[in-house]
Amino acid sequence: MSFGTIQRILGLLLMVASLTMLPPLVLALWLEEGSQAAFLMAFGGVLVSGALFWFPVRSQRRELRVRDGFVVVSLFWAVLALVGSLPFSLADHPHMSFTDALFESMSGLTTTGATVITGIDRLPRSILFYRQELQWLGGMGIIVLAVAVLPILGIGGMQLYRAETPGPMKDNKLTPRITETAKALWYIYLALTVSCALAYWVAGMDVFDAVGHSFSTVAIGGFSTHDLSIGYFQSTAIETVAVVFMLLAGINFSLHFVAWRSLNPLAYFRDSEFRAYMAVLGLAATVTVSYLYLSGTFERFGDALHHGIFQVVSIGTTTGFTTAEYFHWPGFLPVMLLFISFIGGCAGSTGGGMKVIRFLLLFKQGMREISRLVHPSAQIPVKVGNKAMPERVVEAVWGFFATYIGCFTLMMLALLATGLDQVTAFSAVAACLNNLGPGLGEVGFHYSDINNTAKWVLTLAMLLGRLEIFTLLVLLSPAFWRR
Amino acid sequence: MSFGTIQRILGLLLMVASLTMLPPLVLALWLEEGSQAAFLMAFGGVLVSGALFWFPVRSQRRELRVRDGFVVVSLFWAVLALVGSLPFSLADHPHMSFTDALFESMSGLTTTGATVITGIDRLPRSILFYRQELQWLGGMGIIVLAVAVLPILGIGGMQLYRAETPGPMKDNKLTPRITETAKALWYIYLALTVSCALAYWVAGMDVFDAVGHSFSTVAIGGFSTHDLSIGYFQSTAIETVAVVFMLLAGINFSLHFVAWRSLNPLAYFRDSEFRAYMAVLGLAATVTVSYLYLSGTFERFGDALHHGIFQVVSIGTTTGFTTAEYFHWPGFLPVMLLFISFIGGCAGSTGGGMKVIRFLLLFKQGMREISRLVHPSAQIPVKVGNKAMPERVVEAVWGFFATYIGCFTLMMLALLATGLDQVTAFSAVAACLNNLGPGLGEVGFHYSDINNTAKWVLTLAMLLGRLEIFTLLVLLSPAFWRR
Ligand SMILES: [K+]
Ligand SMILES: [K+]
Repeated sequence: MSFGTIQRILGLLLMVASLTMLPPLVLALWLEEGSQAAFLMAFGGVLVSGALFWFPVRSQRRELRVRDGFVVVSLFWAVLALVGSLPFSLADHPHMSFTDALFESMSGLTTTGATVITGIDRLPRSILFYRQELQWLGGMGIIVLAVAVLPILGIGGMQLYRAETPGPMKDNKLTPRITETAKALWYIYLALTVSCALAYWVAGMDVFDAVGHSFSTVAIGGFSTHDLSIGYFQSTAIETVAVVFMLLAGINFSLHFVAWRSLNPLAYFRDSEFRAYMAVLGLAATVTVSYLYLSGTFERFGDALHHGIFQVVSIGTTTGFTTAEYFHWPGFLPVMLLFISFIGGCAGSTGGGMKVIRFLLLFKQGMREISRLVHPSAQIPVKVGNKAMPERVVEAVWGFFATYIGCFTLMMLALLATGLDQVTAFSAVAACLNNLGPGLGEVGFHYSDINNTAKWVLTLAMLLGRLEIFTLLVLLSPAFWRR
Repeated sequence: MSFGTIQRILGLLLMVASLTMLPPLVLALWLEEGSQAAFLMAFGGVLVSGALFWFPVRSQRRELRVRDGFVVVSLFWAVLALVGSLPFSLADHPHMSFTDALFESMSGLTTTGATVITGIDRLPRSILFYRQELQWLGGMGIIVLAVAVLPILGIGGMQLYRAETPGPMKDNKLTPRITETAKALWYIYLALTVSCALAYWVAGMDVFDAVGHSFSTVAIGGFSTHDLSIGYFQSTAIETVAVVFMLLAGINFSLHFVAWRSLNPLAYFRDSEFRAYMAVLGLAATVTVSYLYLSGTFERFGDALHHGIFQVVSIGTTTGFTTAEYFHWPGFLPVMLLFISFIGGCAGSTGGGMKVIRFLLLFKQGMREISRLVHPSAQIPVKVGNKAMPERVVEAVWGFFATYIGCFTLMMLALLATGLDQVTAFSAVAACLNNLGPGLGEVGFHYSDINNTAKWVLTLAMLLGRLEIFTLLVLLSPAFWRR
């Protein structure tokens, strides 16, 4: 393990992270909101600790190897969440406990979007901006993680994408590839953000809301500057913009890269994962809209249509915006939407959940098992597109699925032990592990009323989900630390 | 497909099945309970229809092949459930609708033990006996299914047991192997039943209850002749007998065979699945007893101990007897017990759930995935005992797990759509799919208050679970019916 190098990078990271306090600081000074002290202290504190981390090991430059990757990624996310919680802890309004501040910060950075704050509309704008910024930066990190890091680490079958991603491939060396890939994809991310902000503005948001919501839309984050989320605006135009950009942000960014470089939108439809993604959302939307209309939840078909589509895309991509109290919808709809969030976005997107490609592989292998029962001696490969998947990838996906369900089960039991009811516990774990945000029951509107232990479990759930479980779990294995 | 032969066997099966009406008929006549007409009509009707089925194809004797096995097994279970429902439909007391009668019959035959009858204590003894008999016969069928048929069909990795089971092995030919294996194991089943009945009687039950409960104990069925189940007797001796025989019945019957033939009880401990089975139940019992005592649910440690152990063994083996209203226990206990019922009994036992061996394989493969992340180029086999599992078996187990979860999800959504609440829907599907019996919420005591559609969904769930899902699912695949 290259501890010196890891410490050096961590120090640099902290120094860079301190810069994120500057935009809200400027905003706080400009609007004279009284929150400048919090941001200034956070900025100074993080900058100085970064420098202190960095200085003693500034000349350590060993090449990072694959195994270091697990430590670096887990450490980065944990430290950034801690650092990110500082302004929430330090500000007078909202006055937040350490637990709440960390929950909010982790929720921002992992683009979960679960909040413990009530009265969002009354928050200082600097704090509001900071929350949205956290999600946007989290989204940036996720893109790199998903497209460049996880495939190299080989998490849950994602080595599948190893050869396909743009950029040169150097075995066992993380840095060059990450830099290269990151650049290309961040341009796309930036382009999406700018287009989304413009579109929101044209659709009727003011500049502050347009920028803020563009941040949390392309990051599939779901934080809003209003308690009523997108529902606040009562505007079909704004909802439509949100739906389009949530859909775009849920697509593999490598696929955006390919499609935009070749200027050929058909490239999307050649991708099996994209087709499955659209099919799942399309099917769920059809069921939801029909059920909403036929059950009389909305009298006008138009209302069933736009609320239904919006909520399916928002929950299905794991964004978590709301235009309606979907958790009060009848019958199986709320639970079905939660189940769909387990599928989540495409791999290599900012979306959460288990990812569409894994779901597709699970489905195809389930079908293969049936075929094998009919033809016991046939060799039947699992194909995606027209490429046969290596057995190793298929097994990794199974392992991922079972471990995901296992973690879900244990964390749900933990929440029940803290005294939450079954509906709340089930939905809270689903919403946090899938990086979705809003749940059902007691956590339908926000997470502020649940106990502190539950908040810690859920903070861990958000991190576990975002790091695709294994990045963290592997650190608990003794074999990992053996030389 | 050898339809003629299948029809001939079905006819024979019906004629044999008609005999099951005779013991309760004799009992009804003897006790002058007024239910004799129902059993007589059922006996005659089934005998005659069997003969009508059998007669036209009586000389068809093609050897059954593996593929026929799926049809035969699914058809047998469905037809027997239908036939078994006749006395419930025909009797004046209880007066049951077709839906209820089929639910009760399926619940009996699949040894689920979910009931739609209230006021069990007031039922005629002939009907009570018949319910217990259904479970006992169902358990007999399951032993053959689990030890001889499913391994040959290759369901969910059970080909793993193909070479290990006693008896000669003729490829692709079902009949000789089934007959041979069945005989050896039924003797064990019979011996267990007789010992269990004697033990119950010695512990204080009357003869009727002792025989009836021995039927539903060794079958891991859970039907009782009292509304309060084993709790009716208020006897630690009886509870202890139940715990011992539930534990025994949850063990692979092939393992009983090996241990009893070699007169060596150590043979049990050489079996990985047995060790895992005891470990899971032991751990769950420790957690449950501690939680019950520390939370003050029972003031005396002794009460926490015997209720805790009883309920863990009863739910963990998927028997479903109760001595306490466990569904009102605090915190995570009810949900944890339900989760443990997913693990269920050992393969080759009368228990339900996914089976301990599959759970063990899932766990080991999850561990392997973590090892693979640490050592990406190592070849790491999944071992049970000291035998490396073929990848094919491991994959089949994954496929089984994912499909099980998939079926669970869809059926839970279906129940929610019929208007059940989340706790009821979740627990009802778990209790029926795992062939456990009692659930939580509205289905804590019995299943009579839920709507008819839900009962049908749950009847299907019991059958799906008992046939290890794939036996039924494969019949839906077009490839199966292609020549
Ligand atoms: K989200
Ligand atoms: K049972």
